[in-house]
Amino acid sequence: MKNENENLNNLRHSAAHLLAAAVMKLWPNTKRTIGPAIEDGFYFDFEFANPISEKDFPKIEKKMKEILKTWDKFEKHELSKDDAKKEYPDNPYKHELIDEFSAGGEKLSFYKSGDYWDLCRGGHVDNPKKELQHFKLLKLAGAYWRGSEKNQMLTRIYGTVFPTQEELDNYVKQLEEAEKRDHKKLGPQLDLFTFSELVGPGLPLWTPKGTLVRNILDDFVWELRRARGYQKVEIPHITKKELYQISGHWDKFKNELFRIETREGHEFAMKPMNCPHHIQIFNRKKWSYRELPQRYSSTTMCYRDEQTGELSGLSRVRAFTQDDAHVFCRHDQAEEEFVKIWDIVHEFYKAFGFKMRVRLSLHNPEHPEKYLGNPKIWKSAEDMLKKIAKEKKADAFEGVGEAAFYGPKLDFMAKDSLGREWQVATIQLDMNMPERFDLSCVNEKGEAERIVMIHAAIMGSIERFLSVAIEHFAGVFPTWLAPVQAIILPISEKQIKEANSILNAMKGNGIRVEIDERNESIGKKIREAEMQKIPYMLVIGEKEIKEKKVAVRARNQKDLGALTLEKFTEKIKEEIATKSL
Amino acid sequence: MKNENENLNNLRHSAAHLLAAAVMKLWPNTKRTIGPAIEDGFYFDFEFANPISEKDFPKIEKKMKEILKTWDKFEKHELSKDDAKKEYPDNPYKHELIDEFSAGGEKLSFYKSGDYWDLCRGGHVDNPKKELQHFKLLKLAGAYWRGSEKNQMLTRIYGTVFPTQEELDNYVKQLEEAEKRDHKKLGPQLDLFTFSELVGPGLPLWTPKGTLVRNILDDFVWELRRARGYQKVEIPHITKKELYQISGHWDKFKNELFRIETREGHEFAMKPMNCPHHIQIFNRKKWSYRELPQRYSSTTMCYRDEQTGELSGLSRVRAFTQDDAHVFCRHDQAEEEFVKIWDIVHEFYKAFGFKMRVRLSLHNPEHPEKYLGNPKIWKSAEDMLKKIAKEKKADAFEGVGEAAFYGPKLDFMAKDSLGREWQVATIQLDMNMPERFDLSCVNEKGEAERIVMIHAAIMGSIERFLSVAIEHFAGVFPTWLAPVQAIILPISEKQIKEANSILNAMKGNGIRVEIDERNESIGKKIREAEMQKIPYMLVIGEKEIKEKKVAVRARNQKDLGALTLEKFTEKIKEEIATKSL
Repeated sequence: MKNENENLNNLRHSAAHLLAAAVMKLWPNTKRTIGPAIEDGFYFDFEFANPISEKDFPKIEKKMKEILKTWDKFEKHELSKDDAKKEYPDNPYKHELIDEFSAGGEKLSFYKSGDYWDLCRGGHVDNPKKELQHFKLLKLAGAYWRGSEKNQMLTRIYGTVFPTQEELDNYVKQLEEAEKRDHKKLGPQLDLFTFSELVGPGLPLWTPKGTLVRNILDDFVWELRRARGYQKVEIPHITKKELYQISGHWDKFKNELFRIETREGHEFAMKPMNCPHHIQIFNRKKWSYRELPQRYSSTTMCYRDEQTGELSGLSRVRAFTQDDAHVFCRHDQAEEEFVKIWDIVHEFYKAFGFKMRVRLSLHNPEHPEKYLGNPKIWKSAEDMLKKIAKEKKADAFEGVGEAAFYGPKLDFMAKDSLGREWQVATIQLDMNMPERFDLSCVNEKGEAERIVMIHAAIMGSIERFLSVAIEHFAGVFPTWLAPVQAIILPISEKQIKEANSILNAMKGNGIRVEIDERNESIGKKIREAEMQKIPYMLVIGEKEIKEKKVAVRARNQKDLGALTLEKFTEKIKEEIATKSL
Repeated sequence: MKNENENLNNLRHSAAHLLAAAVMKLWPNTKRTIGPAIEDGFYFDFEFANPISEKDFPKIEKKMKEILKTWDKFEKHELSKDDAKKEYPDNPYKHELIDEFSAGGEKLSFYKSGDYWDLCRGGHVDNPKKELQHFKLLKLAGAYWRGSEKNQMLTRIYGTVFPTQEELDNYVKQLEEAEKRDHKKLGPQLDLFTFSELVGPGLPLWTPKGTLVRNILDDFVWELRRARGYQKVEIPHITKKELYQISGHWDKFKNELFRIETREGHEFAMKPMNCPHHIQIFNRKKWSYRELPQRYSSTTMCYRDEQTGELSGLSRVRAFTQDDAHVFCRHDQAEEEFVKIWDIVHEFYKAFGFKMRVRLSLHNPEHPEKYLGNPKIWKSAEDMLKKIAKEKKADAFEGVGEAAFYGPKLDFMAKDSLGREWQVATIQLDMNMPERFDLSCVNEKGEAERIVMIHAAIMGSIERFLSVAIEHFAGVFPTWLAPVQAIILPISEKQIKEANSILNAMKGNGIRVEIDERNESIGKKIREAEMQKIPYMLVIGEKEIKEKKVAVRARNQKDLGALTLEKFTEKIKEEIATKSL
């Protein structure tokens, strides 16, 4: 596995060299900087003398192909600091790197192919001429030198490369499909959410339809939780600094906290998570062992001070809604509680058709400084998770170093309809917070007994979950999730009265139904309902009224013929109740 | 009305003189400061050489009575600045006041009764000896000189005074009753909410029971709104400064805003209200007149940077939950929308047994600088409200100067079971925000037409509403609102199985029911259920099982006898459905 990754990285980084070689040939006044391999491809950052655009990509790709013919291998050379700098006259970026890399007096490595060479630490393919053929430039973006706003803005060219043309074609096709499904486009098009310049980036505003979808999801999770003894609690979104000093979050998340100084000079923070607040509710009284587990659930917003450049649609936001829950229980109750949450996750994700696997997110024993608590506590916690995963016979794998700083996790990964994998639900065992906040119950012997905590978000962030769900379904939500489940389309004004009595009958049956009473052609009404991806269109004309039926049309041009309203209602209610896909 | 108020104020302020006279006689080293009339009484702030306590009140009251015998009248004297200061050696507070009051070179007025006099602007009773007899000292508190934390902490003595002994007795009785009902005590006792030192004052944490009650209230409001075409929207709790610069809130609420500087140096604020966010959702697209009104509703927290000393239980908090809604409509639709909201308010408050009256909160034409917008806009808005109040034949009165800075309001006042009046719901017409944010629809002529906005909170702040409701009911919530509606009390372990099947049958009927399975005496179980003010206790013993009945006991010792479960379920469901009081 590791070897395969290394091969891919070498391929990608080698292609970055090829891109730079072509750019330098086409525009010799360009200042090159760095070109690393990244997930799914590579990029190279340049300072161009004159701006270029994506329209220049064919020209660059053509030049890359031309140059590639002359590249038999990557040849290593070593230069002194001064010689290295001479290779880049007027290029402060490379000079900065050269000064850093040679700080200990080391020689600097350069790699040469054809007549192009560049400062480089190595990691290339053996036979570029043969192996680098299947590349493509993807997009152009601005990027600050070394990621800092204070530095020069450079031009970043992204590209990708694969061992075979087939793999490249598949990837490009997937990219195109993903772009069509992009939630950043589909969301506003389906009128689910919007952003406002005045409110600011990373702060989505939820329209009536989007709010409906959020609440359907949240209610679904809540029903699964309620059946397992969870209770809702409500918490303020701010707290005094002291809470996070005890929890340890103040130090760990300092940079990402939105901090507030009150008019009296107190330090507050907006909550980046909910556990310390839930702990304060738990800690309001002494508990008998008979009263445990206590299971608290809140759907509530958390806040992180993300950098503007890293924000993206609903995937990365500054205010996100967690469907969060915490279980406070005795050590020997944790396993049962874990299994309950596992079942909730299973039942929830089934309703979307995701294929799931689970990562046992363990701590990295080589970096104990990254984690709270001692090794004994960690071993005991991780052993329990492994046992559960084994008993559940799950598609599980271990992720060393993926644990939270306060405990190990089960992270569920969902594969979407495009084959992309997303980290979604998480169940976390926590034996550190109970120590820090001195959480206990009075046991059978009348003694204070240390308890454990379980963190259990099902969607995690509703925003992020919805970004995945919108793209997974390409906006075509199953009927149970669709904000509008059916729309009634009277053919002319004559049917409006009848159409409204159908509307009210369906509403009475709990169906989310609308009516399009506009004086427009039925063709236009159908087209617009299709655009909104409404599952069912009920066309009402003279004929239907006479026959006491509705002409049912499913989205995607499926004509279901004329049905009685009772028949259709029965059908759609069954579809909703079973959460059919 | 005004005259009566003035008389009361004179009475109260005169009694403050009397209090100070007694204190100075008892502890001559005390430094006097100020003693104004306040709502329901008066206070006087002192710097004592040695601390006193409420145990000293009888002694002070005795001295006040003694002194009162010598007070025939209040006699005005005028002193120069220097002479005035000589009256208060070593009293920096009085010197500060004297400097201020004589800044323009004016003489300073002193008022004398008996052998006591004090710097004073006047406003006293004519015949203190007769009129001041019916007073009582109430409590002692710390208070900063001039309300600023930076200043010396003084000792404030509160008292009250009435024209007759009967009025005084009534008031004291009401105070005692209010103290018994104090939500700050009852809330934690009924386990509805808690506060945490670590989270901070003014930030209530809602327990499962409290959250249940909040949600019952919120769902009630939502059902009333849903029936009238409202839609839920969801908004982040922060925003860029720019939003509030346009709305005008940045200037108006600057001091009360929790402000945030992001790591990138941007200025954000936590929202102190929701209208600008809702406006941004409305403004996501162009609207046809056919699509109006748009009615957006959010139950969401707002934040105000209140001073620690002003916080009080749920009545004054730093994070409060608004059941907020905004209607965006055409000018000629506003009246109908207002009436709809009026009906919601009426239906909601009826379920609590509050007696309602409504204040027409108008602007003060003498201070146009306090309000956004022009006089013409204000007249048109206020005329509409007056017309509606008249048509509704409401118990209405005018409150000049009580308007919001953006428009006039209808403020509903609820009289509770103690006769106290609280401002609760509010409906506000707003013709200024639409100007500021350029809100419009396309009218029949295809032109952009300015619309109006209506702000419509029903509870206002759920926290504050609950503080009122808890005290109004003395914690004895009507069954529809009680977090636990019935509790099943098996007499011994033998009935536990049967008791659980009753529990499940009742849960299946949507009743909020618990079971007390502890191995305790039935007497203790009943006492504790009474303490929790649970409406019904169902005692299950051998006899009940044999007769297939439940022995029903209502709170407050009412024995309802043995009923079949079906009969009891029918009874309680009817009680809940009709929201019977």
